[in-house]
Amino acid sequence: MQIGGVRFRSRLAAELDPDLRREAGLSPLNRAIIGIILFSLLLVVLETEPSVYEPHRLVFDGLELLVLAIFAIEYAARIWVCVENPRIASRWAYARRPMALLDLLVIVTMATSLMGFEGALFRLLRLLRLLRVAKLGHFAEAFRTIASAVGARRYELAVSMAIAGALLLISASALYVLEGGAQPDAFGSIPRAMWWSVATLTTVGYGDVVPVTALGRVFATLTAITGVGLIAMPAGILASAFSDAMQRKRDREDKDGS
Amino acid sequence: MQIGGVRFRSRLAAELDPDLRREAGLSPLNRAIIGIILFSLLLVVLETEPSVYEPHRLVFDGLELLVLAIFAIEYAARIWVCVENPRIASRWAYARRPMALLDLLVIVTMATSLMGFEGALFRLLRLLRLLRVAKLGHFAEAFRTIASAVGARRYELAVSMAIAGALLLISASALYVLEGGAQPDAFGSIPRAMWWSVATLTTVGYGDVVPVTALGRVFATLTAITGVGLIAMPAGILASAFSDAMQRKRDREDKDGS
Amino acid sequence: MQIGGVRFRSRLAAELDPDLRREAGLSPLNRAIIGIILFSLLLVVLETEPSVYEPHRLVFDGLELLVLAIFAIEYAARIWVCVENPRIASRWAYARRPMALLDLLVIVTMATSLMGFEGALFRLLRLLRLLRVAKLGHFAEAFRTIASAVGARRYELAVSMAIAGALLLISASALYVLEGGAQPDAFGSIPRAMWWSVATLTTVGYGDVVPVTALGRVFATLTAITGVGLIAMPAGILASAFSDAMQRKRDREDKDGS
Amino acid sequence: MQIGGVRFRSRLAAELDPDLRREAGLSPLNRAIIGIILFSLLLVVLETEPSVYEPHRLVFDGLELLVLAIFAIEYAARIWVCVENPRIASRWAYARRPMALLDLLVIVTMATSLMGFEGALFRLLRLLRLLRVAKLGHFAEAFRTIASAVGARRYELAVSMAIAGALLLISASALYVLEGGAQPDAFGSIPRAMWWSVATLTTVGYGDVVPVTALGRVFATLTAITGVGLIAMPAGILASAFSDAMQRKRDREDKDGS
Repeated sequence: MQIGGVRFRSRLAAELDPDLRREAGLSPLNRAIIGIILFSLLLVVLETEPSVYEPHRLVFDGLELLVLAIFAIEYAARIWVCVENPRIASRWAYARRPMALLDLLVIVTMATSLMGFEGALFRLLRLLRLLRVAKLGHFAEAFRTIASAVGARRYELAVSMAIAGALLLISASALYVLEGGAQPDAFGSIPRAMWWSVATLTTVGYGDVVPVTALGRVFATLTAITGVGLIAMPAGILASAFSDAMQRKRDREDKDGS
Repeated sequence: MQIGGVRFRSRLAAELDPDLRREAGLSPLNRAIIGIILFSLLLVVLETEPSVYEPHRLVFDGLELLVLAIFAIEYAARIWVCVENPRIASRWAYARRPMALLDLLVIVTMATSLMGFEGALFRLLRLLRLLRVAKLGHFAEAFRTIASAVGARRYELAVSMAIAGALLLISASALYVLEGGAQPDAFGSIPRAMWWSVATLTTVGYGDVVPVTALGRVFATLTAITGVGLIAMPAGILASAFSDAMQRKRDREDKDGS
Repeated sequence: MQIGGVRFRSRLAAELDPDLRREAGLSPLNRAIIGIILFSLLLVVLETEPSVYEPHRLVFDGLELLVLAIFAIEYAARIWVCVENPRIASRWAYARRPMALLDLLVIVTMATSLMGFEGALFRLLRLLRLLRVAKLGHFAEAFRTIASAVGARRYELAVSMAIAGALLLISASALYVLEGGAQPDAFGSIPRAMWWSVATLTTVGYGDVVPVTALGRVFATLTAITGVGLIAMPAGILASAFSDAMQRKRDREDKDGS
Repeated sequence: MQIGGVRFRSRLAAELDPDLRREAGLSPLNRAIIGIILFSLLLVVLETEPSVYEPHRLVFDGLELLVLAIFAIEYAARIWVCVENPRIASRWAYARRPMALLDLLVIVTMATSLMGFEGALFRLLRLLRLLRVAKLGHFAEAFRTIASAVGARRYELAVSMAIAGALLLISASALYVLEGGAQPDAFGSIPRAMWWSVATLTTVGYGDVVPVTALGRVFATLTAITGVGLIAMPAGILASAFSDAMQRKRDREDKDGS
């Protein structure tokens, strides 16, 4: 009996803990858990929409209860099997890890929410389960490639951001002086004019506020053209960063080969 | 007589079947067929516009009939000549190929449509003829280059999409909390706020819904700036992918030459 | 007298004809002419604005007359000196060149316009003088670099355009089916829906027409995300093209050096 | 006493003057000064917003006075210690430097502003303090990398701008002819139509003016697609420029190493 239990624990640990899995990639059980997490995110999103939630309140609450039960069982199982991993000293050491604490927090927020404690901030806490996906994501290597390529150019990107900030301040100041008189609501102060500047420099262009004077439009034109350059610059920096990352990888492989 | 028919069939097969053509590129007959397909797509598009279709109903129906006749003759011709290609076992084997079935489906939808069976879904089926262009396109090699360059970075692009999805959820949640009270119609739930988030993160910026509170605009600014980064990232990944594809091609040519 | 005239002609030819100039770059006379052409373009643009033109009609007409006189003298001078260039057989051969015909056409449209012949199409003909700048532009080498880099990837760019065209047709068709009932004016036919599709796929996003149904917005989201990819693709192709053009140039220089 | 004063001056100079500092990076004192400059910029921005400034007038004026005092002390200190730097001939030579004059100008505009001299143009002068950040910025090296990469392709970028200018003129002219009749306010002259052209070519797309005729929309589609290309081109040029700059750097390092 004891031996059977330990054997089952060992096999379950190999399913739950990526470190103990022999095959590459994610185990079927972890795939299913990611699917349930994504499904529970969809539940949180849909529950905020009254026209969807109100008529199907029972269905949603039932599904939340089901997901809560699965998460609770998963949490208990992870606590039970964690000692199979030689790198984990004790169950208590595992339970204090940030990821295990996050799992517990998600379970607690779901439980209190189902018991009727509700508030705007509380609802957002339920979105924390999004972070649980990060733990298990099998995009890990590609994410590291992207992060290292971005990180290698962090100064260039920070300078781009600083230039963008300066341009934002300059264009908002210019429009404040030029359009402030004609449209005090939209351009009556630099913070107000900044809303327009952000929309223009990022080329989003909502169009809820636009300059109407001739000189204001001339400066708006300069801002819009600068905005195109501001988009081209990070694109260029990142393109070069990714290209260099691949080149370095190839050079390393060539050196190993020769 | 028999020999003449076979000779004509052999020459027609060389015109219709790119595999049997000796010269590079597309045969004049296939070029003409692509032209007719594109023209028939234009017909479908224009027929949905009542102000164009209603006054010229006879012209459009006549042209549809003409195109139907050409497609039917082309289909019959392809069935007749397909046995010239040694890789095609029998006429029945050819007729069961997806491309031949698509050709038949296009003819059937055109015929039933002309006989008066009409419905919104049915009309869309007529757009299937778009797929016929893919079969004959002479952009094939360039398309393969693009597809392989994109494919080589599918993980990086998928991670970009995952990051974009997470940012979409976060920004929609933030605006739902901050603007939901002031504008319940536009930001009263996360799915509603997502419409704004999509327009901002992609820098489309329709401007049909915009945040009006100060804090909402601060978060909108962060979303818009993140959106610029989200555009720069796939651009950088693709630029690096295309550059590497060309580099590999050149390296291979250098190796062959030396 | 004759010799002095010939000497003056030879010196004027060296000023007017870039082929005969010994120094690099543009001669001061040609720089001045480009300045006058750009100034005359500004005149054409401002003359279309009644609030600027009407109160200063005499000033504008006087300036147009002045520019006409300068262009006429320049044309006569070019005809007179062209025989200095050994590559030009005769004055008549020069006068039949497209660039000389363009110069003449510009003068004729200016003259008839000043004599009172006016029409919308005629006014646009006056913009032809824009083309005169191309002839003399000293951006020639950089323009060739750009043109050759773009040209080397013309198939990839054409495939991008073909993909964009197909996506335009698909998204317009989808929105026509999904939104046509709710907003017949904006989405009542595929050509009408295309206006929205163009604004979304290019991420321009005017916002004059937007989907209002839930399903329409889901498809609009897909269209907007696809639009970001459509912008990233040519950016990536061009980045790789420019990078390869520079690499080839460097390789060529390395080969020459070693 | 004298020796103690000189010693303090020498230590203060090492803190204030980056040339005299032995460690890499910015001294803690200069970091604090940059922080105060950024804080004073925030003050200027917020003071333009009456709903923030009016209820807290005393707080803002007090903070401005405090910042003024700090800037005045800093200016005096820099004048006092500048002679420690052997490259500076005299205090008077230092005071005539553009950066020292800028410091003085910032102090004068702050003082006069606090004494009640106020005007729109005067207020903008107070933004000059933004330039003070440039002097001390520790992004200097990354900024130089970006500036040199951009500078190496200045002709290509200038040609992009020239092409953009020509396209702007052409699309504005086309829309003026096609839409001028239907919407005289928005497209009644080329300068008016240019406002729409700028918003479309940069893909900002405010949507305050949009073409309504079928032919106008066809040309608008061409303009929007061209706009995507205009964004892709500088992005491609900059990507290639950054990539080459890194390649050159690596080649140089390889040469040094072998």
